[in-house]
Amino acid sequence: MRAYELIKRKRDGGRLEADEIEAFIAGYTDGTIPDYQAAAMAMAIFFRGLDEGELAAWTTAMLESGDVLDLADIPGFKVDKHSTGGVGDKISIPLVPLVVANGVKVPMMAGRGLGHTGGTVDKLESIAGYRVDIEVEAFRRLVREVGAALIGQTERLAPADRKLYALRDATATVESIPLIASSIMSKKLAEGSDGLVLDVKVGRGAFMRELEQARALARTMVGIGRRMGRKVVALLTDMHDPLGRTVGNALEIVESIEILRGEGPADTTALTVELGAEMLLLAGAAASLEEGRAKIRRAIADGSGLEVFRRMIEAQHGDPRVVDDLGRLPRAPHVIEVRAPRAGWIAGLHAEEVGLAAVMLGAGRARKEDAIDPAVGFTLERRPGDRVEAGEILAFAHVRDPEAARQAVARFAAAWEFADEAPAPRPLFIDRIA
Amino acid sequence: MRAYELIKRKRDGGRLEADEIEAFIAGYTDGTIPDYQAAAMAMAIFFRGLDEGELAAWTTAMLESGDVLDLADIPGFKVDKHSTGGVGDKISIPLVPLVVANGVKVPMMAGRGLGHTGGTVDKLESIAGYRVDIEVEAFRRLVREVGAALIGQTERLAPADRKLYALRDATATVESIPLIASSIMSKKLAEGSDGLVLDVKVGRGAFMRELEQARALARTMVGIGRRMGRKVVALLTDMHDPLGRTVGNALEIVESIEILRGEGPADTTALTVELGAEMLLLAGAAASLEEGRAKIRRAIADGSGLEVFRRMIEAQHGDPRVVDDLGRLPRAPHVIEVRAPRAGWIAGLHAEEVGLAAVMLGAGRARKEDAIDPAVGFTLERRPGDRVEAGEILAFAHVRDPEAARQAVARFAAAWEFADEAPAPRPLFIDRIA
Repeated sequence: MRAYELIKRKRDGGRLEADEIEAFIAGYTDGTIPDYQAAAMAMAIFFRGLDEGELAAWTTAMLESGDVLDLADIPGFKVDKHSTGGVGDKISIPLVPLVVANGVKVPMMAGRGLGHTGGTVDKLESIAGYRVDIEVEAFRRLVREVGAALIGQTERLAPADRKLYALRDATATVESIPLIASSIMSKKLAEGSDGLVLDVKVGRGAFMRELEQARALARTMVGIGRRMGRKVVALLTDMHDPLGRTVGNALEIVESIEILRGEGPADTTALTVELGAEMLLLAGAAASLEEGRAKIRRAIADGSGLEVFRRMIEAQHGDPRVVDDLGRLPRAPHVIEVRAPRAGWIAGLHAEEVGLAAVMLGAGRARKEDAIDPAVGFTLERRPGDRVEAGEILAFAHVRDPEAARQAVARFAAAWEFADEAPAPRPLFIDRIA
Repeated sequence: MRAYELIKRKRDGGRLEADEIEAFIAGYTDGTIPDYQAAAMAMAIFFRGLDEGELAAWTTAMLESGDVLDLADIPGFKVDKHSTGGVGDKISIPLVPLVVANGVKVPMMAGRGLGHTGGTVDKLESIAGYRVDIEVEAFRRLVREVGAALIGQTERLAPADRKLYALRDATATVESIPLIASSIMSKKLAEGSDGLVLDVKVGRGAFMRELEQARALARTMVGIGRRMGRKVVALLTDMHDPLGRTVGNALEIVESIEILRGEGPADTTALTVELGAEMLLLAGAAASLEEGRAKIRRAIADGSGLEVFRRMIEAQHGDPRVVDDLGRLPRAPHVIEVRAPRAGWIAGLHAEEVGLAAVMLGAGRARKEDAIDPAVGFTLERRPGDRVEAGEILAFAHVRDPEAARQAVARFAAAWEFADEAPAPRPLFIDRIA
């Protein structure tokens, strides 16, 4: 009856106490509270929300439902980064080594592709031998010895969140800011870092399409972090068009290494520098964002970031030679040109459509149990804001089987938007919430 | 994925199509849609409601989830009555024979006690031998030959509603007007009557405490009936104080027989006459409510209603001699006086508290599997609006074990409200919605 009363109170706009939330989450995790009561509660929260205190209690209960890493015995400030997901967002891969090169440790558990968005862990697995299923003890050793570990989420962290997320996914209760915020924060806070930089994506290629929603999510997550005694800062960044010049797993490793070499595209390099500067600032390794940016740029220029990446790959059983020889990455057997159908300005490139086309090629999963193809994807020769002539090459599609890929390539081609005038430039950085 | 999309659309305030609702209810009934998706849908409906068309589809889908009685082969207009439940509400028992005595057939399936309210079927079972678990074929024969059957709800009618009701009860989604309305109407319309009179109770002893809620429920149910081609009328009646002078199963049979003898209390007699008049009007057995009232009163005065009741009891295997000899009903071994603690006017008698005290005595069930005690309950010697002296007898508690009943009797005694001035009279009839 207790669960019933809590659902009813939330339904009627009342407030749940911390011990009640704790009991609800514990009961749901151990199965004494059935799925249908949790589903009703999630829908009531969708409509009524959670206030700051409820949200902290909800997040704490989820993070305490499983292992909570304590990295206090590893010296120094540990900082983590999380992106809410986008298309072409490979930033964690160059970012982690650049931060480590500046003496700050990064214990990071990253996700797999979800829907139309790629996942850091899937991308790393396109490096031969790279292992993301690292046990907790090895994870700690990597952080201590290499300065970073970049692995997949273990099943033992926040099991309540895993169970609730699957339920929300089946009951149309995913799109709730408090539930999204507590889901992200319970996992990230269980990883044991002292500080967290959030990259909250906004726009048609992101899960948050509206700026106000994204801002509310960012504020909510920063609020949770503050209440729980962690340093958290969030950037709101644009996800209207894909990030960088590659979409697809191995292709994004190529771009990541190019960023580390100082040869990356302007946007992904700028985002890497900015997020890195925030991480250094949080960690006390830079006195200002300006100093932080300079330090990240220096770690690009002097090759120290690339060197850390090489060590990270080696430590996680991957082939470190990819850093010098991009030809060691899987490569698709066929490359198809995509040409401009008309002359004009590229007004935009629909990020979600590009992501979905990449999934169709095999770069992501239509169903959870699907395997992905690391080699396939798209490389962009042109970007929104560019002027092109009819017939000019816009991009290449890297495909396994040209016949089977026809529909995906057509979808990708249709995602390009043209205009007769130069589009207004879209700022990448929208807001910063601390 | 279909169920997911429907939940999401309803959550976002969209409209469900009739075939979608049909598929959802069918899937829930056969188990292909799990409880947790139905719980999320119920909560979304709690917040978003159902429009008239959705409601008709929802009700139709629930009523078609099981057997639908077709009584067309039984000549004449068949009319049914349903009360949303109150304390001391025994009206169906004298009402059915009085309507039948006027040549109108009444096929009625009634409920058991729920929460603090009593149930017609429980009350009838206090007559020795009376059977309420009558098969459908026997039910039809009773309607044809006796003119009425007053039985329990069979498991085969509206199984979707039974399943959904149990789920709503566990997920705090009971208090939703469209869900209540479709639950009631799916069951009542499956019983095969041509017309239906609804007695929607309002006040602290009813499930609808606020007039506007009750009015909305009444309008919603009348609207469903109209859309489905049935004649439906609803009365809104007061449930602030208990109805009549008895609360408890056998005790309410006594009062029912007194009403049929013309010796009943003013309020329960008036309600019986009014609801009977509505039923005769719906059936075309009276040209006006005035004529209907006169006909019901005549069936009281000439004993024809009592005679029908005798035949009904006999046909359902009960002991018809109770009609002449009330001593054949179960009687509690102990009767405890409840006296006025002060002089003054009786301002009210809290109906819900009286109902809960009766449940504590054993007249109702605390849990579904509990047995009830037919003999226990309360008889009122005084009513709200009466003037009493300190120490005067207000009522009697009929109990099995005086020691065990102490708390229940104290709760009952505390339900009496006193004032120094005469309270304004409360009208029993609040509104009529057709």
